[in-house]
Amino acid sequence: MSTTKVSTLIVGGGIGGLATALSIARAGRSVHLLERAGEFAEIGAGLQFGPNASRALDALGVLDDILPLAVQPARAVMMDAQAGTPLTTLELGEKFRRRYGYPYLVLHRSDLLDVLLAHCRAHDLITLENRRTVVDAQVRPDGATVVCADGSRYETPALIAADGLHSTLRRHVIEDAARCSGYAAYRGTMPIEEVSHAIAPDDVVLWVGPGVHLIQYPVRRGELYNQVAVFRSEKFHLGQTGQGEWGGPDELDAAFAGSCRPVRDAVARIRRDRFWAMYDRSPAGTWITGRLVLTGDAAHPMLQYLGQGACQALEDAVEIGYRLERNDTDIDGAYREFEAARLPRTARCQTSARPWGELWHTADPLLLAVRNRLFAVRAADDYGDVDWLYAPAEPGTAAPGLTATAATV
Amino acid sequence: MSTTKVSTLIVGGGIGGLATALSIARAGRSVHLLERAGEFAEIGAGLQFGPNASRALDALGVLDDILPLAVQPARAVMMDAQAGTPLTTLELGEKFRRRYGYPYLVLHRSDLLDVLLAHCRAHDLITLENRRTVVDAQVRPDGATVVCADGSRYETPALIAADGLHSTLRRHVIEDAARCSGYAAYRGTMPIEEVSHAIAPDDVVLWVGPGVHLIQYPVRRGELYNQVAVFRSEKFHLGQTGQGEWGGPDELDAAFAGSCRPVRDAVARIRRDRFWAMYDRSPAGTWITGRLVLTGDAAHPMLQYLGQGACQALEDAVEIGYRLERNDTDIDGAYREFEAARLPRTARCQTSARPWGELWHTADPLLLAVRNRLFAVRAADDYGDVDWLYAPAEPGTAAPGLTATAATV
Repeated sequence: MSTTKVSTLIVGGGIGGLATALSIARAGRSVHLLERAGEFAEIGAGLQFGPNASRALDALGVLDDILPLAVQPARAVMMDAQAGTPLTTLELGEKFRRRYGYPYLVLHRSDLLDVLLAHCRAHDLITLENRRTVVDAQVRPDGATVVCADGSRYETPALIAADGLHSTLRRHVIEDAARCSGYAAYRGTMPIEEVSHAIAPDDVVLWVGPGVHLIQYPVRRGELYNQVAVFRSEKFHLGQTGQGEWGGPDELDAAFAGSCRPVRDAVARIRRDRFWAMYDRSPAGTWITGRLVLTGDAAHPMLQYLGQGACQALEDAVEIGYRLERNDTDIDGAYREFEAARLPRTARCQTSARPWGELWHTADPLLLAVRNRLFAVRAADDYGDVDWLYAPAEPGTAAPGLTATAATV
Repeated sequence: MSTTKVSTLIVGGGIGGLATALSIARAGRSVHLLERAGEFAEIGAGLQFGPNASRALDALGVLDDILPLAVQPARAVMMDAQAGTPLTTLELGEKFRRRYGYPYLVLHRSDLLDVLLAHCRAHDLITLENRRTVVDAQVRPDGATVVCADGSRYETPALIAADGLHSTLRRHVIEDAARCSGYAAYRGTMPIEEVSHAIAPDDVVLWVGPGVHLIQYPVRRGELYNQVAVFRSEKFHLGQTGQGEWGGPDELDAAFAGSCRPVRDAVARIRRDRFWAMYDRSPAGTWITGRLVLTGDAAHPMLQYLGQGACQALEDAVEIGYRLERNDTDIDGAYREFEAARLPRTARCQTSARPWGELWHTADPLLLAVRNRLFAVRAADDYGDVDWLYAPAEPGTAAPGLTATAATV
């Protein structure tokens, strides 16, 4: 058995892993990345990038390549899925861009992956390997050994887990279970020419109702229209939690049956061949054991209600590159600083996303009344609820290790 | 047995009954009123009168006598009873008075009763009788016979019940039970000179927290300070619902133990010799049977969260006088018009008061977060939530039979 010695080893070649490789290489450190799949690819469709993610893309040197592929929506509109009426609007135009220094973007996941991949491949300090499924790891105070299914072994003083929600490496740090929310998502894009049912095809449109929501926005220069329909599975909540037992297209249609026409029309056009179960975990106390550190969804998987899963993975990528460069040979110090900068903020995303989802999906009349009144009175350029997510910690800082201070929800 | 024939008979000599007598007499109709107690008197302490009640006082010709006794607070402030921080403010000053045409008043119940009583006694068409406890009534399509405990009998073509929450006459119209909310109130006034604990003794201050609220405001030309402490009885909600089993001073102190210092100081100064259980009823389908009509709390008892119990009784009084005058000899028509004008509005008060209370008392973190954010963003002169209560139906109309249109909560 050969053992490859590498100075930094990343496990996982999704958006977070590639971004992390790029960040570390740009910090002057050689990095090796292992991806299980035969090629680098993203499943799923659209991404919403708050300006914190755009800022991270800029720090990674890829923003200029992304902008031509992405769409900059003028506003995000929240609609009542039952009544078909507007609830509230968030202006994403010039005032928003000036406030945060970066635009709000919507884009296709594979467009982002392709750009990251091209930058990684062009970088001398990055080695990418496919078909490397990590099956075992020994983590020590001074390094780690990783064993793949094909028998290949890697030895590194700095192991970074970017292997997602169902991370293989996480168990070395924390023994916990991912929590299934009992919500299922169906997703897909369609050519914009075929879109006749959208009320505002250039904007981000979010429809919310009891137990359901639907998100719509354009991606890929506006050529594709992305739609995500999410619903609470009654079967799951009745105990039918096994794979295949819940979240089927029958439940999708039943959940949206009470929605207004534009929502039902949209749901009718969504592909039904694959459903995603929505998971998260509670915030961890630490992401570090020995020379292993968790990042992205491996560290802090969150529900999608803040649209921050991929954004936070990009922030992680920027931060870990910055910390490894700052601490040079002190990997333990870099990991500790990374965790200190990132854990509170991502924990807040994890814990805030849950009640946001409840607020979208509630059927409680009192909460609905107060929510709708709140939405009705807030101004479209009132950014009080999103400053904590989108504003940089200090102007000009490369690392978006923001501190959570403002009230959320 | 003597039978007294009277053209209009009111049962109940509280604020609502006396106001009704005055209104009917001012409409040119002679009226007879029966009160159970040996003298006309109010128990309890303060009243908050929205401008709809001030408008009714004006229509009854008593506003000029009330104004010197009442206080016109500049604002109502809602505070977080635990954190001790402001949640929201409603400006009650010049802008408010201009909007509604009448001031917001706080006053002592007995001051109002005394003024109403003096006006009733000065009116030739009004006869007031004490020590008349109604024990039986026969209601017919063309009149009613009322029998008192002392054997006295009254015969009338127009019977009006103003006998309050636990109305004796209501059962002739509806067989329903008053609903105990399981909340208890302790109330009392103290000389303003002894008030050292109040944060804004000239204003209406409402403290809200999980399962508790405290209201404070000045009354009687500012000479007295009124306080009402209300709490959810754990004993009641555990099933100890018998009289004397729940709502004691032990529960009062326990309920407010988690409140901030100014609230605990206030609760410590409230008299503990009597507690009030808070009741309401669900809206009735009708208030009329034959020649009996229900008014005030006999018709539409409501929880106190909108501060509208006495206000709505005054609106009833104005309306019934107006309808009897308009219909002259057609009492059935007058009753029907009265009910049509008043039932929807008071039903809305009854049903809106319940969620308002829930909103004050909630411990649900999500509802608290949304509520507090809503309160934080609304302007102190945003009257959107109170217009439906305070605005007249049409400018210059004598009868405030307002139509409910705006969204509440």
